Amino acid sequence: MKEYIDLRSDTVTQPTQEMREAMFRAVVGDDIMGEDPTVRELETLSADILGKEDALFVTSGTLGNQIAVMALTNRGEEVIVGDTSHIFNLEVGALAALSQVQTRPIEVPTGTYSIEKMEELIQEEGIQRAKTSLICIENTNNLNAGFVVPVENINEVCALGRKYNIPVHLDGARIFNAEVASKVSVKEITRHVDTVMFALTKGLGSPFGAILAGNKDFIQKARWIKQRLGGGFRQAGFLAAPGIVALKTMMPQIEIDHHHAQLLGKGLSAIEGLKVDTTRIHTNIVTGSVEALPISIEDFLSKLMDAGIKAKRISKTSFRMVTHWGIEERHIKETIRSVEQIISNL
Amino acid sequence: MKEYIDLRSDTVTQPTQEMREAMFRAVVGDDIMGEDPTVRELETLSADILGKEDALFVTSGTLGNQIAVMALTNRGEEVIVGDTSHIFNLEVGALAALSQVQTRPIEVPTGTYSIEKMEELIQEEGIQRAKTSLICIENTNNLNAGFVVPVENINEVCALGRKYNIPVHLDGARIFNAEVASKVSVKEITRHVDTVMFALTKGLGSPFGAILAGNKDFIQKARWIKQRLGGGFRQAGFLAAPGIVALKTMMPQIEIDHHHAQLLGKGLSAIEGLKVDTTRIHTNIVTGSVEALPISIEDFLSKLMDAGIKAKRISKTSFRMVTHWGIEERHIKETIRSVEQIISNL
Amino acid sequence: MKEYIDLRSDTVTQPTQEMREAMFRAVVGDDIMGEDPTVRELETLSADILGKEDALFVTSGTLGNQIAVMALTNRGEEVIVGDTSHIFNLEVGALAALSQVQTRPIEVPTGTYSIEKMEELIQEEGIQRAKTSLICIENTNNLNAGFVVPVENINEVCALGRKYNIPVHLDGARIFNAEVASKVSVKEITRHVDTVMFALTKGLGSPFGAILAGNKDFIQKARWIKQRLGGGFRQAGFLAAPGIVALKTMMPQIEIDHHHAQLLGKGLSAIEGLKVDTTRIHTNIVTGSVEALPISIEDFLSKLMDAGIKAKRISKTSFRMVTHWGIEERHIKETIRSVEQIISNL
Amino acid sequence: MKEYIDLRSDTVTQPTQEMREAMFRAVVGDDIMGEDPTVRELETLSADILGKEDALFVTSGTLGNQIAVMALTNRGEEVIVGDTSHIFNLEVGALAALSQVQTRPIEVPTGTYSIEKMEELIQEEGIQRAKTSLICIENTNNLNAGFVVPVENINEVCALGRKYNIPVHLDGARIFNAEVASKVSVKEITRHVDTVMFALTKGLGSPFGAILAGNKDFIQKARWIKQRLGGGFRQAGFLAAPGIVALKTMMPQIEIDHHHAQLLGKGLSAIEGLKVDTTRIHTNIVTGSVEALPISIEDFLSKLMDAGIKAKRISKTSFRMVTHWGIEERHIKETIRSVEQIISNL
Repeated sequence: MKEYIDLRSDTVTQPTQEMREAMFRAVVGDDIMGEDPTVRELETLSADILGKEDALFVTSGTLGNQIAVMALTNRGEEVIVGDTSHIFNLEVGALAALSQVQTRPIEVPTGTYSIEKMEELIQEEGIQRAKTSLICIENTNNLNAGFVVPVENINEVCALGRKYNIPVHLDGARIFNAEVASKVSVKEITRHVDTVMFALTKGLGSPFGAILAGNKDFIQKARWIKQRLGGGFRQAGFLAAPGIVALKTMMPQIEIDHHHAQLLGKGLSAIEGLKVDTTRIHTNIVTGSVEALPISIEDFLSKLMDAGIKAKRISKTSFRMVTHWGIEERHIKETIRSVEQIISNL
Repeated sequence: MKEYIDLRSDTVTQPTQEMREAMFRAVVGDDIMGEDPTVRELETLSADILGKEDALFVTSGTLGNQIAVMALTNRGEEVIVGDTSHIFNLEVGALAALSQVQTRPIEVPTGTYSIEKMEELIQEEGIQRAKTSLICIENTNNLNAGFVVPVENINEVCALGRKYNIPVHLDGARIFNAEVASKVSVKEITRHVDTVMFALTKGLGSPFGAILAGNKDFIQKARWIKQRLGGGFRQAGFLAAPGIVALKTMMPQIEIDHHHAQLLGKGLSAIEGLKVDTTRIHTNIVTGSVEALPISIEDFLSKLMDAGIKAKRISKTSFRMVTHWGIEERHIKETIRSVEQIISNL
Repeated sequence: MKEYIDLRSDTVTQPTQEMREAMFRAVVGDDIMGEDPTVRELETLSADILGKEDALFVTSGTLGNQIAVMALTNRGEEVIVGDTSHIFNLEVGALAALSQVQTRPIEVPTGTYSIEKMEELIQEEGIQRAKTSLICIENTNNLNAGFVVPVENINEVCALGRKYNIPVHLDGARIFNAEVASKVSVKEITRHVDTVMFALTKGLGSPFGAILAGNKDFIQKARWIKQRLGGGFRQAGFLAAPGIVALKTMMPQIEIDHHHAQLLGKGLSAIEGLKVDTTRIHTNIVTGSVEALPISIEDFLSKLMDAGIKAKRISKTSFRMVTHWGIEERHIKETIRSVEQIISNL
Repeated sequence: MKEYIDLRSDTVTQPTQEMREAMFRAVVGDDIMGEDPTVRELETLSADILGKEDALFVTSGTLGNQIAVMALTNRGEEVIVGDTSHIFNLEVGALAALSQVQTRPIEVPTGTYSIEKMEELIQEEGIQRAKTSLICIENTNNLNAGFVVPVENINEVCALGRKYNIPVHLDGARIFNAEVASKVSVKEITRHVDTVMFALTKGLGSPFGAILAGNKDFIQKARWIKQRLGGGFRQAGFLAAPGIVALKTMMPQIEIDHHHAQLLGKGLSAIEGLKVDTTRIHTNIVTGSVEALPISIEDFLSKLMDAGIKAKRISKTSFRMVTHWGIEERHIKETIRSVEQIISNL
C-alpha cells in the first residue's frame, strides 16, 4: 500500500508504540457496571487536568457534545452555537434530532465571540418564545481554521451566561492546541465553563474516544444519557489505556505540530497565486485557496493525491491541511515542494 | 371600559356584523369525521383562491406552519428559515420541539432573499451532515416590517428548491397584504411554492384560524398531523363561517389599511427626533425609533397608552404600529397628534 | 338531506339555541394577548367546578391531554397509560411524537385500576431505566365502554403517585357522565389528581373545545405549550360562550342520556342472538356484538345505516352506540325496532 | 483483590489471550472515513455469518437496536416490542427519546410470540391512529430467561410483517446461544428478518461492541445515524480485532456455557425450598426464587457475595445466574455448594 502524507485531519494518526503496549496490558472490567479500573483512571486524570469535579469517557466528541446538550436543556429550548462550529455543522443535526432544541447561530469570523451580539441572541421571555438554555462555544474555534479563543473572551461569555443563568458548554475537541498556542493552561481556559469536552483522537493521537467533564451531578446525568445514546461500554479499558498515555506524553508533539503548521503556512504563502493567510494560522490547521489559479479545487487536490499528499476540500475553492503526530518536517517540505510543482505546471 | 386605538397588531380586530351573523346561522357537523359543510366550504374556497389542490382549516398560523414542517421533513433534517421570520422567532421553538429539525437562518434585511446565500446554506451530502429538506419563506416578510417579497424573488427561491429537490413552504400569514401592495394576485404569488399558509385573523379580520394549502397528498397527511397536534375540530363551522365572509368582503379594507399606514408613516416621519423610514412601509406596518429622543421606549409607549393608544415595543428603542379593520382615518390623525404632543413635551 | 339517528359518538351534537345565541352576543378579544373576557370566564368557571386553581380553554381533548404530558414530563421518561385509553390509542402516537415519552400500558378490563399491577410498572432507578414520570388515568374509562372508575380507586392511584412522587393526570373527557352515574361530584372525583381535562363537546353538547385544569404554575406552563402546539386562539370567546352555557344547563341532559342508554341496552339485550351485556352499561355507551349471528359487523352496520341509524364499528364483531343531546326516547325505540327487524330477517 | 465467581451477566468476561494479541497487532485506520481495514473485516465476516448484504460495527447492542429503530421508522409511529424485552425495558426509553415512536408491548411468557395477538396490535388506518411501522423481536428471548424462540415462530412473525408491509428487527444479542441450543444456524434463524443485531460481548466474550446487519441501503442509512448518535469511531480496529477472534473461536465455549447452566439448574433445583424451574433453562441463564424461604432476596444475594459469588436480583424474590467464558465446572459446583449451605443455615 502506498504511503501518503495525510494532512486531511489530525484524526488519522496511528497510536504510538507505548499506546499499543498500554492497550495490551490493560486491566479491564465491565464499565456499564462501573467496574473498569482503567476507564476510571482516565476519567479521574482528565477531571484533574480540567479542574472539574468529574469526567466521563465517551465514544466520540460528537457524543460528548450531544450528551452535554441533552443534560443541560429541555425539549423546545434554544441553544446559541457558532456558525462555523462542529456542533452546528457536523453532528448530523443532532441538537434537534436528539434533544429537540433550536439552534441560533452566532458569527465568529476570527474566533472571538461578540458579547454584544450574543446578548441580543438570548431570547426575551414571552408566550411565543423559546427559552435560551445553553451557550455552546468552541476552542480552538472553527474546525477549518483552528483559531484560539482568547481566555478573556471565554470568561466574558461565561459572565454573560451567569447573568442570564444560562450554562456554557465548551467544545474543546482541540483544547490542548489552544493551551499550547496561548500558553494558558487548559485548567485556566475551562475555569468558568460549566462543561467541557475534549478529543483523545486529534492532537493527542489516541485511537479512540473523548472526555466530557463537569460537576458530579452533571456527570451522573451524563452517564445515564450516554447509556440511552447507546454509548455504554463493556471492557473499555483497552481504549482508555492509550488515552492515559496520550495525556501524559503527547503535549510536546502538539508544540511540534504547531511549528510544522507555521512552516507549512510560510512555505505555501510564498507560492505565487496560492492564497494563504499566515496570520490565520493559530494552531495546527493551514488553509489555502486556489481561487486565483487556473485550476479547480478538485483537480488541485487530485494532483496533490497523485503526488502522495492528502488534503481536504473545505469550500468551492479552498482546502485544509492539518499537522499531527506522524507528520514530520520532511513531510512538510515535500508538501510545499509538491504544491509548488503543481502550480508551476499550470 | 376605556376604548383604545389599538395598533399593536392586526390580530385584535372585532368581526364585522356580517361575520357575526354568518356564525349565528352556520350549518355545522363533526369536522374530525369530515362532516362540517361550512368548514369544507371555507377549505374549498381557499384552495381555489390559492390555486392549490386542497386546503385545511387550522387553529392558527403557527399550527399551519408546523404541520407543513412535520409533513415535509423527517427528524434530524435541516430547514432554512428567515432570520426575522415568525416561524424561527415566535413559534416557541416548535421546529425542533415538534419536528426535530435544525434551523439554519438566512438574513433577509429588506424582504428579498439572496439566492446565492441561500444556495450556500443547502448542506452537501456527507456522513456528518444533516440533509436540507425544506425552505421556509415569508411574505409579507418580517412581522415587524411587512415587506413585500417580489414575486420574481419567490420564483427564484422555488427554482433553487427544485434544483435540489427541496420543497418550499410559504408563511403567507399576511399574503393578502402582499397581493394588495404588489398588485400581483395571491394565486400568482403562490404558483411555485409547494405549500402555503395564510391567516384569517389579520388583515382579513376574522376571529379565528388559518388556512394551509397544497396538493391533495400533502393535505391528507396534514389532516392527520393536525389531529396529532390536538388541532382536531368538532362543530368548527361556526368559525369557518366568518372566514368565508372575510375572504369575500375584506379585500377593500386591506387597501384602506395600507393607505392608513402611509398616512401614519408620513405624519410620524415629520415629527422632529422620531426616526421613521417611510420607504420601509410596504403594507400595513409602520415602525419607528425613539433612539434619538430623551425618552426610553417603555416610557414613550406608556405615555402613548395614557393618551389612549396602544403600540408594540419591538426592540430596545423601537416600536411597531399596525393598521387594520376598526382603525379609521381619524384614529391615524389622533395617533400622530398624540405622538407630536408627547415628543414636544419632552 | 336525510336525517339520521346518529349514535356513533356524543361528539356529533348540534348546539342548543341558547348556545347559538350566546355565540352571537359574545364579547371577545385577542386571547393570545390574554384579552378575551369570555374565554377567561369559561376558564374561571371550569376551575371552580373542578376545584383547581386555574384552567385553560383548548381546542380538543387530545390537545389538553398532550399539553399535560408535555408539561409534566421530560424527554425519555415513561408514562403509565390504560391499555384501552384514548391517550394511548387515539391520539396519533402523540406521547412519543411530541413529548418523547415511552408508554407502558396497564390493563383496565372493568374500569378499575389494579394498584398492585400499577406499582409493578413503576420503573426502579438504574442506568438502563427510563424514569416513570406520569400516570394517566381515564374516567369514564374506555371510550368503547364508558365505565365509571370508583372514586376510591382514583384516590388509591393518587396515593400511589404521591408515594413515588409521580403526578397523576386524569383524562376526564366524559367526567360529567361519571359524576351523574356515580353521584359523586366532579370536584370530589378530581380532588387528588394533579391535572384534569374534560371535553365541552361530548355530553355537554358544546360545539368546540376542552378544558385543562391544575395549579397556577401548571396552567402557566400549559399556556406556553399550547402556543407551541399551534393552539393559540384569537377571538375565541365565540367558542367559549356556548361552553359556559353548556356547563350551566346540560347536566340534566346527561341524566337523560344515561336513562336512554339503559333503555337501549335493555331493548337490544332482549334480541335473540345479539350479545349485549347490560351490566357493562355504566353511562351513555352501549356496546353489542354480532359474533353469534350470521352477519358480518360491516353488513350489520350497513343495514342499520339503510334504516337511518348510524353506529360505530369497534372491533371485528362489535359496535358502539352512544346517547347524547338530540337523541330522544323515540329514537331509542326506533333503533331497537330496526335492529330487531334486521336480525329477524337474517 | 478477591476473585469472585461472577454470574451476574455474560458481559463481565475477560478477553482470551488470543483476543489481546489480536488487539495488539491490529492494523487500523480512521473508521469515520471508512479506512479501518480490521473494522471492515469484522463487518464483512459478520454479514456473511448472518447471510445479510452488509453489517456495521457499533458500540453496543443498545446502539444497534436504536439505530435500527431510527432507520426503519418515522416520528410518531408505533413499534411492537416484547413486554420483557431489552429494547423496551433496558434502553433508557430510547425508542421514544431518540426516535419518537410509541411502544406497544406484547406478552411473550415462554419465548414464543402469539401471531394472533400480534396481529391485533397492528393499528388500523385512521386519522387518530399511529401507524405500526416496526416489529421488534428478541432471540434468545427475555434477558432474565434466555428462551429460544423457535425458528418457525420467527418465520411466522416475519410472514405477518410482510402481510402488513412492516419490517421485522431481531435483537439477537444472544443469537449464538439460540443457534447452539436449537441447532439451527444463525443464518437460518435470521433468514426472514429485515435487520438483526448481535452482541460481541456476551457469549462471544469479546470486550466491546455489537454488530447490526441488513441490506446495503439499510446499512448505509445506519452508518449515518450511528454518526448522529455519537457512535462514530476513529481507529476502532483495535476493538474489531478481538471480535473477529471471538466469531472464529468462541462457539465451543457457548456449548460449554449451556452445559454449565444445566448443571447449575439441576443442582439448585435439588435444594429444598429454592424454586428453580429447569424446564425454563434453554441456554446460559438460570433463574431461581427465594419466595418460599425465610430470607429476603437482598439478604440471600448478600450472603452469596460473602461466599465469593455474584448473582443478579431480577425481582422482589428472584435472581439470575448467567454462565460464560471464565466460568468453569468447579465454579458451578462451588456455587451450588454455597447456596446449599446458605439455605441449610436459615
